[in-house]
Amino acid sequence: MMSVKGKKIGIAVTGSFCTYEKIFIQLEKLAEEGAQVQTIFSGAAQSIDSRFGKAEDFLDRAEKITGITPMKTIAQAEPIGPKSLLDILVIFPCTGNTLAKLCSGITDSPVLMAAKAHLRNDKPLVISVSTNDALGINMKNIGALMNMKNIYFVPFGQDDPVKKPNSMIADTSLLIPTVEKALEGRQYQPVIRG
Amino acid sequence: MMSVKGKKIGIAVTGSFCTYEKIFIQLEKLAEEGAQVQTIFSGAAQSIDSRFGKAEDFLDRAEKITGITPMKTIAQAEPIGPKSLLDILVIFPCTGNTLAKLCSGITDSPVLMAAKAHLRNDKPLVISVSTNDALGINMKNIGALMNMKNIYFVPFGQDDPVKKPNSMIADTSLLIPTVEKALEGRQYQPVIRG
Amino acid sequence: MMSVKGKKIGIAVTGSFCTYEKIFIQLEKLAEEGAQVQTIFSGAAQSIDSRFGKAEDFLDRAEKITGITPMKTIAQAEPIGPKSLLDILVIFPCTGNTLAKLCSGITDSPVLMAAKAHLRNDKPLVISVSTNDALGINMKNIGALMNMKNIYFVPFGQDDPVKKPNSMIADTSLLIPTVEKALEGRQYQPVIRG
Amino acid sequence: MMSVKGKKIGIAVTGSFCTYEKIFIQLEKLAEEGAQVQTIFSGAAQSIDSRFGKAEDFLDRAEKITGITPMKTIAQAEPIGPKSLLDILVIFPCTGNTLAKLCSGITDSPVLMAAKAHLRNDKPLVISVSTNDALGINMKNIGALMNMKNIYFVPFGQDDPVKKPNSMIADTSLLIPTVEKALEGRQYQPVIRG
Amino acid sequence: MMSVKGKKIGIAVTGSFCTYEKIFIQLEKLAEEGAQVQTIFSGAAQSIDSRFGKAEDFLDRAEKITGITPMKTIAQAEPIGPKSLLDILVIFPCTGNTLAKLCSGITDSPVLMAAKAHLRNDKPLVISVSTNDALGINMKNIGALMNMKNIYFVPFGQDDPVKKPNSMIADTSLLIPTVEKALEGRQYQPVIRG
Amino acid sequence: MMSVKGKKIGIAVTGSFCTYEKIFIQLEKLAEEGAQVQTIFSGAAQSIDSRFGKAEDFLDRAEKITGITPMKTIAQAEPIGPKSLLDILVIFPCTGNTLAKLCSGITDSPVLMAAKAHLRNDKPLVISVSTNDALGINMKNIGALMNMKNIYFVPFGQDDPVKKPNSMIADTSLLIPTVEKALEGRQYQPVIRG
Repeated sequence: MMSVKGKKIGIAVTGSFCTYEKIFIQLEKLAEEGAQVQTIFSGAAQSIDSRFGKAEDFLDRAEKITGITPMKTIAQAEPIGPKSLLDILVIFPCTGNTLAKLCSGITDSPVLMAAKAHLRNDKPLVISVSTNDALGINMKNIGALMNMKNIYFVPFGQDDPVKKPNSMIADTSLLIPTVEKALEGRQYQPVIRG
Repeated sequence: MMSVKGKKIGIAVTGSFCTYEKIFIQLEKLAEEGAQVQTIFSGAAQSIDSRFGKAEDFLDRAEKITGITPMKTIAQAEPIGPKSLLDILVIFPCTGNTLAKLCSGITDSPVLMAAKAHLRNDKPLVISVSTNDALGINMKNIGALMNMKNIYFVPFGQDDPVKKPNSMIADTSLLIPTVEKALEGRQYQPVIRG
Repeated sequence: MMSVKGKKIGIAVTGSFCTYEKIFIQLEKLAEEGAQVQTIFSGAAQSIDSRFGKAEDFLDRAEKITGITPMKTIAQAEPIGPKSLLDILVIFPCTGNTLAKLCSGITDSPVLMAAKAHLRNDKPLVISVSTNDALGINMKNIGALMNMKNIYFVPFGQDDPVKKPNSMIADTSLLIPTVEKALEGRQYQPVIRG
Repeated sequence: MMSVKGKKIGIAVTGSFCTYEKIFIQLEKLAEEGAQVQTIFSGAAQSIDSRFGKAEDFLDRAEKITGITPMKTIAQAEPIGPKSLLDILVIFPCTGNTLAKLCSGITDSPVLMAAKAHLRNDKPLVISVSTNDALGINMKNIGALMNMKNIYFVPFGQDDPVKKPNSMIADTSLLIPTVEKALEGRQYQPVIRG
Repeated sequence: MMSVKGKKIGIAVTGSFCTYEKIFIQLEKLAEEGAQVQTIFSGAAQSIDSRFGKAEDFLDRAEKITGITPMKTIAQAEPIGPKSLLDILVIFPCTGNTLAKLCSGITDSPVLMAAKAHLRNDKPLVISVSTNDALGINMKNIGALMNMKNIYFVPFGQDDPVKKPNSMIADTSLLIPTVEKALEGRQYQPVIRG
Repeated sequence: MMSVKGKKIGIAVTGSFCTYEKIFIQLEKLAEEGAQVQTIFSGAAQSIDSRFGKAEDFLDRAEKITGITPMKTIAQAEPIGPKSLLDILVIFPCTGNTLAKLCSGITDSPVLMAAKAHLRNDKPLVISVSTNDALGINMKNIGALMNMKNIYFVPFGQDDPVKKPNSMIADTSLLIPTVEKALEGRQYQPVIRG
């Protein structure tokens, strides 16, 4: 199996703040395994402070772990295409807003521009879903994206069927195995979790 | 909880032949619990013989269990609307072909005409998925249908992620509980199975 | 204003049987005004007998009024394109099934093949809606079709908001004025009726 | 019939400035009838001054009538979901831009985040359309939204078929009756106006 | 480059009769290069006689060249999935009708069932477009299909921009090179022809 | 053929910076031929400096050539509708982001608001594509837009099938002929270039 060692991996962060602690766990694992990690932060992710912490602190912590300055603007993300900067890109966490825009072809945030620029090079994009309308309005977008070229999903399932019946979230402990499979052009299975 | 006793339930059968044995188990349960069951057979379901049995035998067996002659034509299914013949309709099994046509508004089979006629009366429709492109081309349709008015799903999941990575199938043992919830206007949860 | 006199007009009939009496009224008006009318019958329209009459009788009556043999197969309808047989085509009545297939690009009936063949020549197509899922699953198709090139609608509205809340039907008394406007490349207004 | 008295009602305002006078009429009626009204303003609605008045004045006036400070950011709107702050949410007026984004699953404004957060709780959302592309590019979105779970429309029709042939606008005098029906899970009828 | 020698290749024929002469040229080339070719005929392709010849003769000629009996029913095509009968499947010619149904997930013909059954095994499907609504209603479907997993196109372009402005047709002389690329998981380029 | 002389032409610029030199060539040609040109700049186009030059300089140069101050806000673009300011509008260059939003009905930039306001008057909109996901995620949008009322495309084709296999770009030397045809309600052909 292909390893993440030495791979140039983009981690594009959108505003699902409750999952941020999990991001850092994975960033550290990726660093340990020898991946070269470039983070990209959406407008919301780089500016909104929430009960889970301050945006500024997230950016600092990401830079400390990866040793690379996060990309924060559309202009910074655009060269991912022509300069072929990444081997693989992971949107983690991927909100419903970003799912919908990606599915439609919209690129009005640094994360979406990174995705478009990267896909131009026919390389894999991995999505780590985190949204409470996953089985609602956004389900059709997840459905279309799962069948698009070069797009893979971290296995995901319902996280609270009683209180948030339409919510689904990725099992981020499977992020690295999903990335390894995606580098081979395959979807990690089973992709749907109970 | 609302019970199926005395309810007029349509069971619309499309051509996913491997699940037929499960249909009869549920038809018998529904009969035992006092439901009045009208079956509707799609063109494929009423004519294709497969290694799972002869179409003719299926029709006979359905009629024997329910005591009601199956509907076999679009013209027979159409009065479900104006005469308000059913309390609830279940498409079981629902193939990818029927999912796609239903999502699009196509009504060129007895089962699809039954669905359209029934939905006109603002009453619940339950889908029991059985298709090996559920995570492929048909996923966008499942996604759209899950968010449509009056439509509910029997909980479903992947049945063989290794050999048929895009296949999903409903847990038909949950058919009756799903019907009971749908009669109250609610989706049985969790709807996604691991 | 452009008149229907001397125009070659296709009237494509699909299976919304309750509106058939209205068809003959319009066929007669078109004949009186000097239009040359070619009817096309869908599979359902040419074969299903209903409480509104026998299919065979409809075909005979149509031929008697127009003096031209109805088209009944895909092969007969296909030359509408290469031979440029029509100035304008009207689908009347247009069921939900035909709306959905037309919107998607499906051509598996004589009426749909007529529509595709005719549109290839960049000429107007008029739709006279008659379906009880017009505000249900088919509404997205009506929405997309209203914005497509060369497609126009006979003004339509809800016909029975209490018993059939999703049903809409065209005001067929406006068929000829709508055709005249469409021949000039414009939509008759107001297109939505209360 | 269910009354608005004591109900927690969100009124989410987007940038269709010509309808603002109507908003205040309805806010006052809701206040009179004893509803507890929380307004949410989109980015455009809270910042663009137009010939219909200054944005700042609108916000002040809304606060004066309702006695509650308007929500103005995505971060403020997000708790509508987890804290279940509203019984019903009305987007009034709802521009074409917001219709399109809502239909797609995009949540990049306070109003759209409010809608998504609220829908997560399986509660009703009412849309009061006001856009001059209602019968143009946005018609497919209106069509899809009308068939989505928990979504209802204030009855709407064409407002100026000659000069603005694609424009449709809600009859806002029916806002409260529509809300009352939606609280019972039903669409006020007739929903289409001539 | 991967060769077609020894490969099991499905050639699925739909009803664009004017391109049939080209089919036989390619069937002969594939036979010469040592491919094992299984043809599948749609309902139209196996039954409609046109000015280009009789359906029966086409079937005979295909069988003579390939040495294998054509598949003519949905039931015959279905085992392509579970028995993994093909290395690659080519829809040639692919009409607008089949493009639209494939894009939607509909499988109501032997060719469409073959496509679905084959895609389930995560193997390549090649489309050789031939339709005069390629730049009309079907363009959105071509657009979606080009971005779907495992789907590739024989390079195609406009064939008669003056008389049939929306028509596009594949350059079938590139069929074998496109198949060879697709077997490697890549699209032959340039895919759009002037 | 209709000429651009004396016509009020909108040129709406979005952020595909590499094509800017071509814009000025066309602006000068339009000025020479006697057109009255109003430019509209998207948020990105008016603010992002790139290796192709400074945004400020682009705005100055556009104003110098046309003699008219560029529109830079949604509020400035909105009157294009009610005041009927333009005979024709050209989005040039049109990025994938703007294609996707236009197709969906989103109007959250000055360029998109200009498009919506202008289309309300039933007048032609011309799109000059420039995006490297034209054959990727955005292809479905191009496909839908090509079939929408009043929308025309400057002929376009692949610009670098090897390095950017999904990229397509308009042949901007055909901008004026395409505008002239569009003013007559016709698409310049051939629209697809090899």
